[in-house]
This record gives sequence, structure tokens and C-alpha cells, in this order.
Amino acid sequence: MGDDAALFAARKGYETILTCDWFLERTHFLRELHPADAVGWKCLARAASDIAAMGGEPRCFLLSLAVPKTHTGRWLDEFLGGLHRAARRFGCAAAGGDTTRQDRILINVTVLGEVRAGRAVLRSGARAGDLIFVSGRLGEAELGLRLLRSMAARPGNPLARKHLYPEPRLALGRWLTERRMATAMMDISDGLSTDLRRLCAASGVGARIEVGKLPVVGAESGLGARGFDALRLALDGGDDYELLFTVPPGKAGRIHDSKLPARVTCIGTITRDRKVLLIQTEGQEREIVSRGWDAFRDRY
Amino acid sequence: MGDDAALFAARKGYETILTCDWFLERTHFLRELHPADAVGWKCLARAASDIAAMGGEPRCFLLSLAVPKTHTGRWLDEFLGGLHRAARRFGCAAAGGDTTRQDRILINVTVLGEVRAGRAVLRSGARAGDLIFVSGRLGEAELGLRLLRSMAARPGNPLARKHLYPEPRLALGRWLTERRMATAMMDISDGLSTDLRRLCAASGVGARIEVGKLPVVGAESGLGARGFDALRLALDGGDDYELLFTVPPGKAGRIHDSKLPARVTCIGTITRDRKVLLIQTEGQEREIVSRGWDAFRDRY
Repeated sequence: MGDDAALFAARKGYETILTCDWFLERTHFLRELHPADAVGWKCLARAASDIAAMGGEPRCFLLSLAVPKTHTGRWLDEFLGGLHRAARRFGCAAAGGDTTRQDRILINVTVLGEVRAGRAVLRSGARAGDLIFVSGRLGEAELGLRLLRSMAARPGNPLARKHLYPEPRLALGRWLTERRMATAMMDISDGLSTDLRRLCAASGVGARIEVGKLPVVGAESGLGARGFDALRLALDGGDDYELLFTVPPGKAGRIHDSKLPARVTCIGTITRDRKVLLIQTEGQEREIVSRGWDAFRDRY
Repeated sequence: MGDDAALFAARKGYETILTCDWFLERTHFLRELHPADAVGWKCLARAASDIAAMGGEPRCFLLSLAVPKTHTGRWLDEFLGGLHRAARRFGCAAAGGDTTRQDRILINVTVLGEVRAGRAVLRSGARAGDLIFVSGRLGEAELGLRLLRSMAARPGNPLARKHLYPEPRLALGRWLTERRMATAMMDISDGLSTDLRRLCAASGVGARIEVGKLPVVGAESGLGARGFDALRLALDGGDDYELLFTVPPGKAGRIHDSKLPARVTCIGTITRDRKVLLIQTEGQEREIVSRGWDAFRDRY
């Protein structure tokens, strides 16, 4: 800290992973809706999730921050509080950054991580016959955001927390990588419909997802009565930061037998045919269209 | 490229250097004044200069870019043209990034570099008696900017080029590091008056700079007639991206005897007394006050 750049000694036998992420007022958050400490937590969690998606461990981060003069006091203190809580949680040390002034809040986070040499899991390794898994429940963060916006939930609500303080699946990513279980992996940041298509495109394959297997948000939240569609939330909701990964059928048994660091669900299979299909309960098929988050279209 | 993060294998016996830099419309450049390809060149050159200042070699970079819809066509092509020209020149490969939309142009560049383990030169190593050197001529970039703004120069003018297309002193930084010549080093990005005070503060020392030794912009540009003050430009002008470094007196002879990759000038000495002083031609002393670029105060 305080020098022109940060120094980092890579561990022997490890490769370095590098990722960066925008977190911009109005595009990715609203200063009226998102508490400052959630902005601090989430900007690092998003980037750390990219490290989890490669099977790596975050080691250090750089923060580029631009703030208005009005936000250099209490807002900044709370922002740094959330950021440092996340840094401790993810084992990721502050290594430097760049600060400037703008009339809106601009954040860019770079995370440097490590993965054992040759073990990183890319998006491009899925093969026909592989089983498709996701961690957690899909659509929770999107639902949390909608509840926050409609004032139906406070920041402490579990669904709201999933949107405000996401937990990147670092332990699961490492577990899968250490055992060479996953052929392809990525995090679901923009919604399953968008991210699954990306994984399939990178691997040159297709997928069949069974609607009945999707881990959707449950009825306990009284969704139906509020007019929320749990399937749409699971397919198109953004910000879940769950892992999407593929496992060869011969290894899938080990996943079901094991004590995993997170709940995972098999939702379908990879196909040679490049279509990405949703299989309805009655067996009808329909194409899954990318309807997740799109930074060139969506904003708050 | 195309995965959640970039992978990088560190060379044996090297440490990784990491730096990031904002380059924001209105704070750091103006879309009317700065050609798109200069914006592309300079955003990478600025970050690569931080690697030069540690004595390292840039290896790869991440680009975080936010652009208005109106700038996704020709502007973006020219921007990427300048960026890739710089990347080839600095030996720095594109390794990924993040793209989004905003109504103004926001750029953040992360550069990952390498330096032989234990050889990185910090700001904090200057000791009393060390000689102070700078590369190049100071104030050229600031003068180039002023000429551009007053329409007195076109982008091809050598002074304008120094502002628009800075060349980080990578070869000089490496030369000094390989020979263990420098005790402290940083790049002059905000102006000598600001950056020298930072180096002295980090090292817990002071400095005596001799006004007659400063490599100022020469009379050939007809400055006096235009009302420019060459000394002020040299002390407070930003964006030069020259190197400021200190050398123990016993090693300074090797600098004068050598074929260096860039012209360097000895401008003074480090003192135990923490004052940072300018010594006038007649011997009077005055404190050097930080009057360089300040992102929390200055804008175009």
C-alpha cells in the first residue's frame, strides 16, 4: 500500500487468477436503496465469485473508487466497513487501488487469486452426457431485490440479504476443483437462462434442463399471492452468485454421497445437439432464451 | 478471455506486481479534446508506468470500460486501436475485463507485471546523501495540454504527443533494477512538487533540489513570449510519466558513465532533515509545496 503498485509472491505450484468487475451507481446499485456497507460487501463479493467459479482462492484485491464530496464521510466509513468485513470473510487482503472524485459513485474491483496449476475449471470443458448442477436456490436475490424495492422487506430479511450481501461459493468451488469433479464451471451472476447459454456456447454443446428439478424459491414466501413467478425468477433472476457446473456421469455419485460445502442440485444434462432446452413436467420442450441481466439494457 | 477470470503463470524467481488506474471522462480526459486512440493508448500507458516505477515488466492487463451507446461504433474502434498499439509496444497482453454502459466514458485499467523477486524498488528506500534523478524533461506534457487547449498545437506536435501518448519509462526502470542502482523510485504522474514530497514522506527524509539543474522545457518553444513559466511547469505539471529515483553517491558515477535507455538528470540530494527545498541560483532556499495534480481538486 502507498507504492505505485502492489507486490505479490505466487505460491509454488499455483497459477494466478485475475478478474475485475464494475459496480456502478444506477447500473448496479442505487444509493437510496443499497446501504453503504452492502455496496462495500457486494463489490468485493461479485469479483470473488469469479475466482470461486474458476475453483480458486482469492488472495488480494485492488479498489478503484470514485465518490462525490458528499460521500467522503459517513457513507465512505460504512462502505469500507462492509468491504473489510467481506475481505476478512473471503481471506482477501487489501493491496492498493486508486481514488478520485466524481459526482456519482463508481467502483471497480480487481481480485487476484490462486489455483493449483492446471486445475482451473473453465467454461469450455462441458461434454455431451455430463450432468448439470447448480448450488443453492435460484432467484432468491432477484426476489430479495423486488421485496426491497416494494418496501415489503427490510435489509435484514433473508431474501434481501441474498441480494445485498451475496456469499460467493468459494468453498464449493475449491472442493470441486481439488477433486477434479467439474468439467466446466461458472458463476450465475446474470441469471441461469443467460449464463447457461454462455457455458454451452463456450463448450460447443447444448443442454436439457428439467423444470421439475430446478431449485426454485419455495412457496413459504407466499410468492404466488404476490404475483411472483418462481420459475421466471430461477431462470432470469440476476445476482445469485451460485455456481453452475458440469460433472461426468461416472463422478456424479460422489457428489450425492458427499458432505458438500453447499447444497447442490442436478438440473439436467449436457447434449451434443447445441439447443438449450427446458423440459416441462409433461415432457414438452421449449428453447431457453437469454433473459437474464444485460448491462447494455438493464438498470435500476 | 471469455471465462470468469484470466489465468497467469508466474515465472520462477519473479514476483507479481499489480496496479490499477482510473481514466475518467471530465476528470482525466475530455471527449472533445482527446482523440479516441489517445484515450486508448494513455489509459494503458498510465498503468504501465506504475509497473516501470517498481522496476518491473508489464505482462497482461484487464480493461474495465463503460461507454455511452453513441460511442460503441467508430469511437470504440479507434479507442481499441490505440489500446492495442500500446499493448504491443509495452509487451502487455489483453487478458479480459468487464464492459458496461454509462452515459459517460469510464475506464479502469489493471496491469499485472513481474519483477525479479526481491528487486522491486519502493518509494520508501531513499537515504540521506542519495542523489536524486529524474528522466526526460519535466513539464512537457502539461505544456502540450495547454497548447492543445488553446488550439496552438495539433495532436501531432511533439509536446502534444507527450500529453496524449506518454511513453512509460519501462526500459529505464528495468535497467536501474537489474543493476540495483536505485534505492527509491516512483513515476512522476502528478507533478514533481507533489510526487517528490510523497517519495520523501515514504522514506522519512527530505530533499534539496537545485533550480538550475531541473530539466525544464527549453526556450525553443517560445514559452516566455506565450507567458508560460518553465519552472512552474516542471514543478507542478502533471502527466509526464517520467521516473523519479534516488541513487547512493557511490553508484552515481555508473549512471553518468553508462548508455542509459533514457536521458536522466541529477537534480539534487536527499537530506536527513525532512524539509523539501528548492535551492535558487543565488543560494536562497524555499519550501517546495505540493501543487501538482489533485484528483479531488482538479479537472479539465
